[in-house]
Amino acid sequence: MTMLRDPSSKYRPFTPIALPDRTWPDKVIDRAPIWLSTDLRDGNQSLIEPMDAQKKMRFFKCLVAVGLKEIEVGFPSASQTDFDFVRELIEGDHIPEDVTIQVLTQARDDLIERTFESLKGAKRAIVHYYNACAPAFRQIVFNQDKAGVKAIAIAAGRTIRRLAQAAPETEWRFEYSPEVFSSTETDFAVEVCNAVIEVFEPTPDNRLILNLPATIECSTPNNYADQIEWFGRHIDRRDSVIISVHTHNDRGTGVAASELAVMAGADRVEGCLFGNGERTGNVCLVTLALNLYTQGVDPQLDFSDIDAVRKVVEECNELPVHPRHPYVGDLVHTAFSGSHQDAIRKGFARQDPNGIWEVPYLPIDPADIGRSYEAVIRVNSQSGKGGITFLLEQEYGISLPRRMQIEFSQVVQNETDRLGLEMTAQQIYQLLEKEYLHAETPYTLVRHRLQEEDGTSAVDIEVAEAGVTHHWRGTGKGPLEALVSALPVEIEIMDYSEHAIGAGSDARAAAYIEIRMGNGRSLHGIGIDENLTTASFRALFSAVNRAMRQEQARAA
Amino acid sequence: MTMLRDPSSKYRPFTPIALPDRTWPDKVIDRAPIWLSTDLRDGNQSLIEPMDAQKKMRFFKCLVAVGLKEIEVGFPSASQTDFDFVRELIEGDHIPEDVTIQVLTQARDDLIERTFESLKGAKRAIVHYYNACAPAFRQIVFNQDKAGVKAIAIAAGRTIRRLAQAAPETEWRFEYSPEVFSSTETDFAVEVCNAVIEVFEPTPDNRLILNLPATIECSTPNNYADQIEWFGRHIDRRDSVIISVHTHNDRGTGVAASELAVMAGADRVEGCLFGNGERTGNVCLVTLALNLYTQGVDPQLDFSDIDAVRKVVEECNELPVHPRHPYVGDLVHTAFSGSHQDAIRKGFARQDPNGIWEVPYLPIDPADIGRSYEAVIRVNSQSGKGGITFLLEQEYGISLPRRMQIEFSQVVQNETDRLGLEMTAQQIYQLLEKEYLHAETPYTLVRHRLQEEDGTSAVDIEVAEAGVTHHWRGTGKGPLEALVSALPVEIEIMDYSEHAIGAGSDARAAAYIEIRMGNGRSLHGIGIDENLTTASFRALFSAVNRAMRQEQARAA
Repeated sequence: MTMLRDPSSKYRPFTPIALPDRTWPDKVIDRAPIWLSTDLRDGNQSLIEPMDAQKKMRFFKCLVAVGLKEIEVGFPSASQTDFDFVRELIEGDHIPEDVTIQVLTQARDDLIERTFESLKGAKRAIVHYYNACAPAFRQIVFNQDKAGVKAIAIAAGRTIRRLAQAAPETEWRFEYSPEVFSSTETDFAVEVCNAVIEVFEPTPDNRLILNLPATIECSTPNNYADQIEWFGRHIDRRDSVIISVHTHNDRGTGVAASELAVMAGADRVEGCLFGNGERTGNVCLVTLALNLYTQGVDPQLDFSDIDAVRKVVEECNELPVHPRHPYVGDLVHTAFSGSHQDAIRKGFARQDPNGIWEVPYLPIDPADIGRSYEAVIRVNSQSGKGGITFLLEQEYGISLPRRMQIEFSQVVQNETDRLGLEMTAQQIYQLLEKEYLHAETPYTLVRHRLQEEDGTSAVDIEVAEAGVTHHWRGTGKGPLEALVSALPVEIEIMDYSEHAIGAGSDARAAAYIEIRMGNGRSLHGIGIDENLTTASFRALFSAVNRAMRQEQARAA
Repeated sequence: MTMLRDPSSKYRPFTPIALPDRTWPDKVIDRAPIWLSTDLRDGNQSLIEPMDAQKKMRFFKCLVAVGLKEIEVGFPSASQTDFDFVRELIEGDHIPEDVTIQVLTQARDDLIERTFESLKGAKRAIVHYYNACAPAFRQIVFNQDKAGVKAIAIAAGRTIRRLAQAAPETEWRFEYSPEVFSSTETDFAVEVCNAVIEVFEPTPDNRLILNLPATIECSTPNNYADQIEWFGRHIDRRDSVIISVHTHNDRGTGVAASELAVMAGADRVEGCLFGNGERTGNVCLVTLALNLYTQGVDPQLDFSDIDAVRKVVEECNELPVHPRHPYVGDLVHTAFSGSHQDAIRKGFARQDPNGIWEVPYLPIDPADIGRSYEAVIRVNSQSGKGGITFLLEQEYGISLPRRMQIEFSQVVQNETDRLGLEMTAQQIYQLLEKEYLHAETPYTLVRHRLQEEDGTSAVDIEVAEAGVTHHWRGTGKGPLEALVSALPVEIEIMDYSEHAIGAGSDARAAAYIEIRMGNGRSLHGIGIDENLTTASFRALFSAVNRAMRQEQARAA
């Protein structure tokens, strides 16, 4: 009943800094911080399939449309894709006048030079460099003492300043990150940052960005806020620096850490849309912005069509947004409990359209972000195959293959057009059942026997057709090929897939098949059964029956 | 570029309470709170497909195995399924001696009576009742003033106490929730709770649970902590009450709110495994527990096999855990960035197995929760042509499932580290063949015979092992289940999928399987064959052989 090992002998608790006179707990956030999106760099780095140039451009345009004014677009010295993308942004004139791109580089001269090459001709740019300052990194990774780490930051800063002065056509800004700030002695972080300030000589009109990452979240978020407040009190030239925070979510408190840090004096927040990034991800900028919005504060970012933003992000990242993700998840504007539904109904009935939002259980008016309270678990004819696929997968464990998604979306569309309203997930599943799973005429598979030996399958099937019972037999290299040879119609199997629904003894198999009939028409079928073979046979019959019925309808 | 409407005219900011002498920001959590799981009630209520009795029992047993001592099992007056489930728990003697079940009821006499009926014969039980106290609910939903709301809490408390006294064979405990506490005037919540205390007359030996829900999360988590600290200072008989918190995640700060509330004096935390529940869900108990663990504090909950817990929860809830969910997500113990991988490698090399955990970028030793660290390498990522997954799919039509991508990327990484260069698609495929497709020892599947009738599959297999031929036989609901029962090793199928490569008479089937051996290790296998059944059998043998060879290597 206990863990493998007593954790007190293995894990070192975080040591809070002393800040008894902290002021942040009495603060309220009353305006938006400066936002930086690091989706195209930090988020992109952690994708199984990194974005190609086309996806990066699509994501960049989405970020611009949302209202981001500072966008970290890549790590050009580490990746040719990123280098080329920065060039394309500059040469293709894709950067609006009020947007500044930012690029990341390690604190090494060769990489910094390559970074400046990538930025040649940019109107504005932020060069962001970093080195890790925390004790574990100094000892384990770099074998450096404090002086060595500080010297790296200074030397790289000098190189950056020199290269910037040599390219005066660009309006340069600079950012330095003492990486793993949250696990670094705060006074040492201040010492290194003060040395960097001396290099760049920032002024109130040309401020240096000091970004303080919780690279690995290692304590409750109040401790991070204490570190930020302490840092702000002790850093030189406070009016000439922008304090930026960059929180990760290892402990599930990345949003709170950023918010408390802003209360503690941070001016700027780095993060990703919907919180992508290494491991548990970066803080979610959408959540932070809409948290401000629901407190009556203009977030300076536009999520009035949140689903459109989500679509771009999901398609570029190839990662889903969770159904319970704040504000955007498919289930967050819905209510399942009867008493919740009742309260919400009363709330909507009383809500003054021009008054303060007061509907119980709904912290935001879903309409403000292009959603609706009732529509969330429904699919309408506009939402296309993505929505249908998602609902079937989330709610029924059904993963339609891509071509089948297209076929079925047309079936759904016909139905929504006919009914003139949106369909619930249940209605969609019923339609799927009717169209595919209950496609049992003209042929109903009554039972099958299968014998396999030496790779050859022999199948006997009993099939009912309009009151007549057939016994057909076929052989082949596998059960499906045997079944095809048993049927009296000529078909070819074009595609086949199968997956489990559930696991263990409760598992069922879902089989999907695409067949081509003698007349060249392609059609899909589905079968679900506890038995894998039965599921595949049902899928084949589903497809064949659909084909034959369409043929009959055409002939009639 | 701005939202539809100025939010300051639509949303009312939260009004913090004045608590300048708050003490919680100086506190550190040094022991586990009392945990209550509300998965079977609050979590279950928000499922598209509520759990049936079988699933509820499976989930209950999982919660007991994890170490939960207080479990809210249902809302028996609102649901016949819940009522019957409570009866089954009691009559079937499923509740361990050290576990107490809890049930929820609204503050209405008829529902309270029905609740007590459901608990007849229980050895121990917590009766939990609630009514909403927040201004919006008083006005919009119930049309009640403060006195009316308080009178409801008192009257229902009296009914509960009377019915409990009439059933002395049960050891009763009581819980009251002023629902929507976080949006209620804190002094009014104290007033109502003090009235409830007068009804139940708790003592230090028989404490009343006062549960203070953030039913809808409505502010930064420091404000909730202030409310909890204020409540604890002003409530009567503090030593006779247990202050419990129940946070939701509408603003993405549910974990932080619970943690800061515990620092502010809360004794007990209610939540769900992986954070299910209405809208954005309840706080995730797994995250809270492992946050304590990584600070060296024994969480009193056992997640040493976190994937087994996740499997039960995902199957019962029919909702996925996100790939970036703290501690448990598929991607959270992986590193994509080369510099991260480098630092982690150095950290592992220096890590003393009996010393303090110090591996960079990994806040927990993945082995402590039954996981392993995975460095995900991308092949050809520099040239922008995509990774392993992409190459296998493009060149060989192989679509690896996600967890398998991660497993295989490690195999590739070991090889690229050894070779010191990037690999071609062909080299990657050869590695896949060597690792999975040619994994034919100790067991080589020589042939199989399969007979299926009436949904039951019987399989005879001939297997060669070091010159000896075995004949094994098994039956099951499908060919794979039959095969598993035929094998002399204990395995469980965790995941299975299959797709066609090519089409028509040239088509082959690719089958992917994830198994878990008796020792808890999870491993993948692949099978490719013209015959669908053979492909799936080969996949199973591939996984079993890999597992056994790794076992032998370890033993050697």
